[in-house]
Amino acid sequence: MIYLDNAATSWPKPDAVGEAMVACIKNYGANPGRSGHRLAMQAGEKIYECRENLARLFGIGDPLRIAFTANATEAINLAVKGLLAAGDHVLISSMEHNAVVRPLKKLESRGVELSIVKADPGGRVDLKDIEKSIKPNTRLLIVTHASNVTGTVNDVQSIGSLARAHKIIFMVDAAQTAGKYPVDVELMNIDLLAFPGHKGLLGPQGTGGLYVREGLTLDTLKEGGTGSVSESLEQPDFLPDRYESGTLNTPGIAGLNEGVKYILDTGIDNIRQHEKQLEEQMLKGLGQIPGVKAYGSNNPELGVISITIDGRDCNEVGNELDDKYGIAVRGGLHCAFLAHETMGTQNTGTVRFSIGPFNTTGDIEQAITAVKTIAGA
Amino acid sequence: MIYLDNAATSWPKPDAVGEAMVACIKNYGANPGRSGHRLAMQAGEKIYECRENLARLFGIGDPLRIAFTANATEAINLAVKGLLAAGDHVLISSMEHNAVVRPLKKLESRGVELSIVKADPGGRVDLKDIEKSIKPNTRLLIVTHASNVTGTVNDVQSIGSLARAHKIIFMVDAAQTAGKYPVDVELMNIDLLAFPGHKGLLGPQGTGGLYVREGLTLDTLKEGGTGSVSESLEQPDFLPDRYESGTLNTPGIAGLNEGVKYILDTGIDNIRQHEKQLEEQMLKGLGQIPGVKAYGSNNPELGVISITIDGRDCNEVGNELDDKYGIAVRGGLHCAFLAHETMGTQNTGTVRFSIGPFNTTGDIEQAITAVKTIAGA
Repeated sequence: MIYLDNAATSWPKPDAVGEAMVACIKNYGANPGRSGHRLAMQAGEKIYECRENLARLFGIGDPLRIAFTANATEAINLAVKGLLAAGDHVLISSMEHNAVVRPLKKLESRGVELSIVKADPGGRVDLKDIEKSIKPNTRLLIVTHASNVTGTVNDVQSIGSLARAHKIIFMVDAAQTAGKYPVDVELMNIDLLAFPGHKGLLGPQGTGGLYVREGLTLDTLKEGGTGSVSESLEQPDFLPDRYESGTLNTPGIAGLNEGVKYILDTGIDNIRQHEKQLEEQMLKGLGQIPGVKAYGSNNPELGVISITIDGRDCNEVGNELDDKYGIAVRGGLHCAFLAHETMGTQNTGTVRFSIGPFNTTGDIEQAITAVKTIAGA
Repeated sequence: MIYLDNAATSWPKPDAVGEAMVACIKNYGANPGRSGHRLAMQAGEKIYECRENLARLFGIGDPLRIAFTANATEAINLAVKGLLAAGDHVLISSMEHNAVVRPLKKLESRGVELSIVKADPGGRVDLKDIEKSIKPNTRLLIVTHASNVTGTVNDVQSIGSLARAHKIIFMVDAAQTAGKYPVDVELMNIDLLAFPGHKGLLGPQGTGGLYVREGLTLDTLKEGGTGSVSESLEQPDFLPDRYESGTLNTPGIAGLNEGVKYILDTGIDNIRQHEKQLEEQMLKGLGQIPGVKAYGSNNPELGVISITIDGRDCNEVGNELDDKYGIAVRGGLHCAFLAHETMGTQNTGTVRFSIGPFNTTGDIEQAITAVKTIAGA
């Protein structure tokens, strides 16, 4: 199996990820932050270690400003629902994932005003277009760091400066970049950073988180037991407890910790360099096949390539790649209809190849050959 | 280490739990329900298998009526926020956990009316007291199947009949009973069942779920990508997608599936019998120690025993049990202040011993001896 579906879930993971999960389950599978005994303490320490490593990776000063969530989707829901009230205006790019669009569509029905800034067909959103859309009641600007359909990377540093200048809260959806591309919340003026654990960070599914800048207080999405101030019937107001109700996914977070450590040890630039080379190889190979069209910037950016093949249905191509060639990709709309609309592929979808740190030039060669055969070239 | 903190998180787990998690990470760690390739299909099938096994355990006809959540707390939040609007009245017992109380306190501030039916000091809520508190606008009744502080089991079948007779939606918090005590949603007239995966069901932390009776539609707590109807900017209306946004915790659910299978194979009655015997042994032993007071019904019910020791602070006793005797328990208020208030232990808390399926008579003997020494008897 050649796995080129890393933008959905990265695979394989470093061995240490699964090992840490089993070690947690076997050796200290107790409840973090609840009981005072040694197994519970060990669970709590592992969770803190993961917070520290994430903070290191994202340039976050205080690890306690990171709240763990089940995935990036939950982080985004917590952020937008915790922040926006009727009358507020929120700006997003047209490359956003349904994880951003669907919660906002719901908030729109409750009186939040939503504007969508159209990106260029390559998937990049223009600073001037954002600026033009700012209104006096604009409270939040959300931009995906990179498109999950094309891998096009937005210049979030410049966008962050713009948001800061206009005193607008800036949220970045790092679903595709966390662990694959440098993210620095200070440098980029990021107030809210939503990230999944199971993609670029190489952790297991069921993990993710939200960074909340100091001074910013969100309403809670869930309340419940936190293991702290049990005598209060109200949710605690300190972080991370305020945003983390119920027992955390300790084995998942232990696994995520190993994924993040792998990235810190390997160096994000080295991972990026490797993936960039493979993307370059793939774009070059695909470019020589008649009838194949690649979308996005067509520059190697994040190892995500979306294509269509003339006269062929994208889901069928995906199935054929799996069945006949043992190549795992994702065909269709990728939970990002607006992005496909931006590129003009809303009726066809695309076939998405997404590269991970463990892919090889051989994988890419085989993928190119398979596409060539399918395209009848 | 003698582990008697199973009411927080059960430990150890059957070996198959950790093995299934690693097998998932290693062999089919792809994104369930997103891509069409074989690894993604395998992930999707494992998740469905777990739904089926849970449905079997709880007497649920349609496995798709179960939505996976990160824990019982999330399931409760989804249920109460998805159901209650300003002007609705909700009834709960005074034995509820903060996972129930805190979300409702928040809803109270938004115009939901909350009444708390006081249980007797043993922790059981009386049917007549519930009936007396019903109002014309009572929409929801929530009762914990068993107290997390005392293990006292409520007669949810009778309570369910009462709710049905009054056309009130009935929700059961099965945080302590799922996997340890028979639960049958049909027999018990349960409309909403919230359960954790990491306690009696012997799965890993980060898992849980909500059963929603057919015909009952909840508003969503989170919206986002579901891998389905990607072209729609609104959340899908079919189950389970409606309530499951973002990538599910596949390795966690694969582990949970093994926990549930272990319970189905062993038989819940056998597990219960074993735990009941140990509780009997423990209650008998503790009853002979002067200065030790046990709370709750003082009948063996669910393997959860809360005690105080005259003149000793509960957290200190917990620490001493860990440090000197290698016994893991939980001292304090157990995220359930109202329950402690009901028992009159709100100022002291209790030391809670909670038994699991892998405890032995030897564990209990040692625990009794340790308490005896600590109590100076």
